[in-house]
Amino acid sequence: MNGTGAIIISGINSKFGELWQVSPRDLAQEVVREALMRAGMKRDEIQAVYVGSMLSGSLSGQDHLGAFFAEELGLPKAAAMRVEGACASGGLALHAGFLAISSGAYDTVMVLGIEKMTDYKPDDVARALMGAGSDMEREAGATFPALYALMARAHMEKYGTTEEEMASVAVKNHYHASLNSHAQFRNRITIEQVMKSPVVASPLKLLDCSPITDGASVVILSSKKRAKKHSRSPHVEILSSTVATDTLGLGTREEITSIGAAVSASRKAYELSGISPGDVDVAEVHDCFTIAEIIAMEDLGFFPRGDAASAIMSGKTMLGKSRGVVVNTSGGLKAAGHPVGATGVKQAVEVYQQLSGLAGNKQVKNARTGLTHNVGGSGATAVVHILKK
Amino acid sequence: MNGTGAIIISGINSKFGELWQVSPRDLAQEVVREALMRAGMKRDEIQAVYVGSMLSGSLSGQDHLGAFFAEELGLPKAAAMRVEGACASGGLALHAGFLAISSGAYDTVMVLGIEKMTDYKPDDVARALMGAGSDMEREAGATFPALYALMARAHMEKYGTTEEEMASVAVKNHYHASLNSHAQFRNRITIEQVMKSPVVASPLKLLDCSPITDGASVVILSSKKRAKKHSRSPHVEILSSTVATDTLGLGTREEITSIGAAVSASRKAYELSGISPGDVDVAEVHDCFTIAEIIAMEDLGFFPRGDAASAIMSGKTMLGKSRGVVVNTSGGLKAAGHPVGATGVKQAVEVYQQLSGLAGNKQVKNARTGLTHNVGGSGATAVVHILKK
Repeated sequence: MNGTGAIIISGINSKFGELWQVSPRDLAQEVVREALMRAGMKRDEIQAVYVGSMLSGSLSGQDHLGAFFAEELGLPKAAAMRVEGACASGGLALHAGFLAISSGAYDTVMVLGIEKMTDYKPDDVARALMGAGSDMEREAGATFPALYALMARAHMEKYGTTEEEMASVAVKNHYHASLNSHAQFRNRITIEQVMKSPVVASPLKLLDCSPITDGASVVILSSKKRAKKHSRSPHVEILSSTVATDTLGLGTREEITSIGAAVSASRKAYELSGISPGDVDVAEVHDCFTIAEIIAMEDLGFFPRGDAASAIMSGKTMLGKSRGVVVNTSGGLKAAGHPVGATGVKQAVEVYQQLSGLAGNKQVKNARTGLTHNVGGSGATAVVHILKK
Repeated sequence: MNGTGAIIISGINSKFGELWQVSPRDLAQEVVREALMRAGMKRDEIQAVYVGSMLSGSLSGQDHLGAFFAEELGLPKAAAMRVEGACASGGLALHAGFLAISSGAYDTVMVLGIEKMTDYKPDDVARALMGAGSDMEREAGATFPALYALMARAHMEKYGTTEEEMASVAVKNHYHASLNSHAQFRNRITIEQVMKSPVVASPLKLLDCSPITDGASVVILSSKKRAKKHSRSPHVEILSSTVATDTLGLGTREEITSIGAAVSASRKAYELSGISPGDVDVAEVHDCFTIAEIIAMEDLGFFPRGDAASAIMSGKTMLGKSRGVVVNTSGGLKAAGHPVGATGVKQAVEVYQQLSGLAGNKQVKNARTGLTHNVGGSGATAVVHILKK
């Protein structure tokens, strides 16, 4: 079902944050130069570029980002395209790159996720981001914090999830980010700080929400055969790459305490790879809001329904405390930052680095198997990748 | 190099034109319903949807079109993504769909090209379209008619191409469109009418330019194995699908009387398919301006450099007169219309119908081999498909 498969032979994240001094082209150059250098690869070996990006057209007027970055990065004549699916754009670009390698049409492909968000007026960014939702939601003024607040309320009612448990997601992810030199927020926080932060959309408070971020991430994918020629850098195999969708708006879903698309995509990813949730050592999941990480843990089968919140609060997914899967070692969207088109690629870079022993202070010992979980909108798109050393 | 290949088992174009009365969702429903019906296929057999579209985010605020159309079309849990590369978005979506089938990950994929352009203020549409170009071009106010006018002037100087020869492209394509009930402009025109039409960007006049258009096009792709189960509709094989890029702006190209990306993509497509230009019976090429069709004929190897204009004027690519390749039987972008994200898919639908004997009044007798040529911006992206009955 997955063709010949694909190998990640290099993966780099830029610093995430408010990068006003850097243009998109310089940001892309920086990560691509480093990724190629580590792989010992020349630019003209890249045959195709998949760019995950959401907002450039709406905010800056620049579309056509495939050709744009192929030119900027000095990849003459390379095939190139942009892939968009809101905050899942990066994961979808990785999926497209994986299929491109699996098809045999290309044997070296670059997947670039990139977004510049902090250069624009916050109202314009909020409006552009609502392009991910349904028109009924836009008309109602229901922004994403409001939509995830509805999911949080439903989860609290059904499973007794508490605001403190949600806060503990942010505490863990800020702790992990404190060990990540590329993270946007490296300050450690307490449950009390989250609880006392301003309410954005009750029960979600400021410190339950991921930020607006600039950043770029790149992975270089290779066919198994071609990868043998690039032995300088560690190799990680993508065992499965799956995508599923659901209704765009929350109002038309049967259930809002779970993201059905993530359940579908992850079940298929486990099936294709022969990996079970219990085999996964590290996972990067889409914690755009703290409640989203709790739901992700349950959707991905790491914990039974209703058990994830207390498990997270007791440290079961935290670096140094966990005996099972360690979640969002990068700091997640919450603390490492969420440049929307980059996020899905950044997750793969973090897992690549973990499985390669390159994760520095935040290294999970003996990590062999990893998973990424990238979501678009309030769950209309979900992308799951399973990776193995 | 092309994995297992892919079969088009159904292909439908909507009426192209000013479709103010129809929403994007209704337009998509219309073509998808018809395409599925002709293939004798149920909606839940579609495993993945690739949407080619450029302007929705900028003009209507709706992004995330993969999940949007998967929901609207009743394709629960299908994988879905939007692919964007300016006016080549449709061709790129077809390329992505082709690779998805070739990878073995999916065996039934839908490629939907769609654009609504006439509901918005012309200035807003013109501004959004400039997202395809370079920022230097935007700053200079160089819109696409101006850029193609520069290419026309250069071609006139280098090869002696005349304005009348350019006009003859429009005359031919309007003649073809007069036979196409789905075309935007079905009126036959004369060279005199083109020559007397208002100048847009000298030497290009109004009737040298393709219009702003609403429209949707869909193809259903199947693996070779799976296609055997769908014998109701004619089958056409995609022999090769190729993409190449060049610099975004005209100013940084070595040559502007040719589109280098189209030369690269078509050479590779011929090589992969074992087809030569002389084997091609029907071609849909990207005539966003009349000069673009002349250049395309030369880039694709149908005529030597400098010979295409006089060949077109003498009817060598016209239905009923040609003894070689017949070009733009749909009416092309010029007369059938140019809903940007739909165009690349529409070209494949027209060739599918030609090779299947379904082209009605505009049928090319004994057409066995076809080609599509879809361009983004002023040539930064080119996508070529070669198809065979």
